[in-house]
Amino acid sequence: MSEERIYLDHAAGGWLLPRVQKELLNFLGEIQASPTGGHREGREAREQLEMARRRVADFIGAKSSENVIFTSGGTEAVQSAMRGWGASAGKGAIYASEIEHPAVESAVRRLGTSGFRVARVPVDGQGRLQWDGVRTEPGASLVCVHLAHHDLGTVQNLDEAKQFAERVGGKLLVDATHGAGWVPLAVEKVGADLVALAGHRFGGPKGTGALWIKGGTPWLPWLEGGRQEGDRRAGTENVPAIMGLGVAAEEWSKSGGKFRNRTRKAQQALADGIREKISFARLHGPEVGDWRSPAHLGFSFVGLEAESLALILDRVGLAVRGGSGCVTREMRNPPAMKGIGARAEEARSLILFTLGTETEVEKMSLASDRVKEAVARLTKALSS
Amino acid sequence: MSEERIYLDHAAGGWLLPRVQKELLNFLGEIQASPTGGHREGREAREQLEMARRRVADFIGAKSSENVIFTSGGTEAVQSAMRGWGASAGKGAIYASEIEHPAVESAVRRLGTSGFRVARVPVDGQGRLQWDGVRTEPGASLVCVHLAHHDLGTVQNLDEAKQFAERVGGKLLVDATHGAGWVPLAVEKVGADLVALAGHRFGGPKGTGALWIKGGTPWLPWLEGGRQEGDRRAGTENVPAIMGLGVAAEEWSKSGGKFRNRTRKAQQALADGIREKISFARLHGPEVGDWRSPAHLGFSFVGLEAESLALILDRVGLAVRGGSGCVTREMRNPPAMKGIGARAEEARSLILFTLGTETEVEKMSLASDRVKEAVARLTKALSS
Repeated sequence: MSEERIYLDHAAGGWLLPRVQKELLNFLGEIQASPTGGHREGREAREQLEMARRRVADFIGAKSSENVIFTSGGTEAVQSAMRGWGASAGKGAIYASEIEHPAVESAVRRLGTSGFRVARVPVDGQGRLQWDGVRTEPGASLVCVHLAHHDLGTVQNLDEAKQFAERVGGKLLVDATHGAGWVPLAVEKVGADLVALAGHRFGGPKGTGALWIKGGTPWLPWLEGGRQEGDRRAGTENVPAIMGLGVAAEEWSKSGGKFRNRTRKAQQALADGIREKISFARLHGPEVGDWRSPAHLGFSFVGLEAESLALILDRVGLAVRGGSGCVTREMRNPPAMKGIGARAEEARSLILFTLGTETEVEKMSLASDRVKEAVARLTKALSS
Repeated sequence: MSEERIYLDHAAGGWLLPRVQKELLNFLGEIQASPTGGHREGREAREQLEMARRRVADFIGAKSSENVIFTSGGTEAVQSAMRGWGASAGKGAIYASEIEHPAVESAVRRLGTSGFRVARVPVDGQGRLQWDGVRTEPGASLVCVHLAHHDLGTVQNLDEAKQFAERVGGKLLVDATHGAGWVPLAVEKVGADLVALAGHRFGGPKGTGALWIKGGTPWLPWLEGGRQEGDRRAGTENVPAIMGLGVAAEEWSKSGGKFRNRTRKAQQALADGIREKISFARLHGPEVGDWRSPAHLGFSFVGLEAESLALILDRVGLAVRGGSGCVTREMRNPPAMKGIGARAEEARSLILFTLGTETEVEKMSLASDRVKEAVARLTKALSS
């Protein structure tokens, strides 16, 4: 086996896009002035901040950059969106599936214990939300949908979610912390009210996120203190990282099609290789295609425990994620697998392969060779 | 006038410490793996994370690094500390002055509207908290003290705050988001229960903060979702920036005395220069010495509006802050100035000069020349 490592855990963290890295490197040697300063250094920081805001707005198809606020990441964007809506609404209902990311699910449960009614949206065997027949609730409501599922790779139909939101007169939250860039998103066209982003999932810096709040949406700030971000998010703006987030957004606006096509080819090659070389491997979630994020594959290897298999994969030079991509209290058994009706032994053996913009299609054959090798090693270890 | 700019708005943001910058530059070219990954890249990220945690613990004189959690900055650290205590306590009292930073004051007011009793701690003419005679409240309580005041530079007596906390049986929150490094802090020795830090105020990256929670302190997590930070703060850890925060902490542990002494000399030179050259300039808060942070000077120039003076100072090559250092709803009239009994015309003309570790004592004469020049220009403009 070649010594060269292959890294396929990009959803958790990968490389910065080359231009993001380059511009961050230049920036870190400069003064890190605050955009609140009235001096030249402050004005320059303010220009960087507003340029990044414009770039993020363009990236998600938003008209006005004023509706974008920056957060410390996807979790804060989601929590702030949901708890901020709840604080403003006071009472009402939340519509959400049982396969949401822990950041969403935590907010659903917290609002649930604060008196909000929670109506669950069922999913089919591929993790697609099924809006027909959902119990509807009177009063104000928030309808939650994710752009792409963190464990299943499922791309949701936002138009259906919007139709449901219109039917119940609710606001629509699009959790795009997984999927942004990888799945085209036009927030105004969809008719979203709240949209959450996580910078590091599309080649931006960690510690960056954004929340888009359509004008007029009932919402209250969550992080309070100073008057930054138009009184919507207190705390000194992390301008260097926000600048990097803006550059990542612009790179996707320019080259998203190329990124997606290239990654889709690598994804297809990896999926084909795994299926060809390990007959019992099973892909969960949608087939490779429009309803699956190009960055994501989740295979189960029944009989082999995911954590052990991931450890051996690491030894043979392939970095992947064993179990759920997002650390949850139910880590050893990703809730989404139960949600789509997968068997417990499938859930326990789920390996996530997440790709990045620099993932090379040429390496995917070697990657599936390594999967085969690790599967063989673990199978042998268990049989002896 | 020399063309070279002098930057004295470090409390809002300055340069990274040289070693922080160097290590961050190296890090950004590497993979930004998540510490939750079981693979080699994840283990390396985990090592970086835990090394930073150890360095931050050492920096604040904490025994166990386990009690440190990382946040997105000082505001989140403070809000999380206070609202997390409030969520756990359920009811009780908050002791706080009326000159706290907006991040603290927002949490005081929020807890106040949630049924907590608020007892105000008066301050003297230098902004020193006066614990004698504070109305005491029965039940659980949180006693708030800042290490150094953001607008006045006042260093608080933490031992007195601790004695008061013991008297009322309350928990002690030390808001060290201003002052950490600049004022030696030993959290175990003081007997603090909660301590908040902001990385960029001591040469670390923006978007970093830390919260130290003494074992057994009633507290509930604020940002919920994934299981990061031992279930105490959800969200993908911003490892590169946290690494930078750790390096900054270590630099202060090693060289804090040198940083403080050097900056104290520059501070003294600047204060002397301003007083010598502008007879009506008045220093607010304590005299230069142990009860003032070496990084901070706040002078009023009665008759000259702070924003206008700061603008002219910028034109003559000196970047400072006109008005409160932290953006508040009362920005044009820093509440702390009212709190210490300063006149409204003093509050309206307050200019903050905040120094950094790279501020050179040799430049301070030029800096005060520029203050003189700007004062003369504005005075002339107003008189003609």
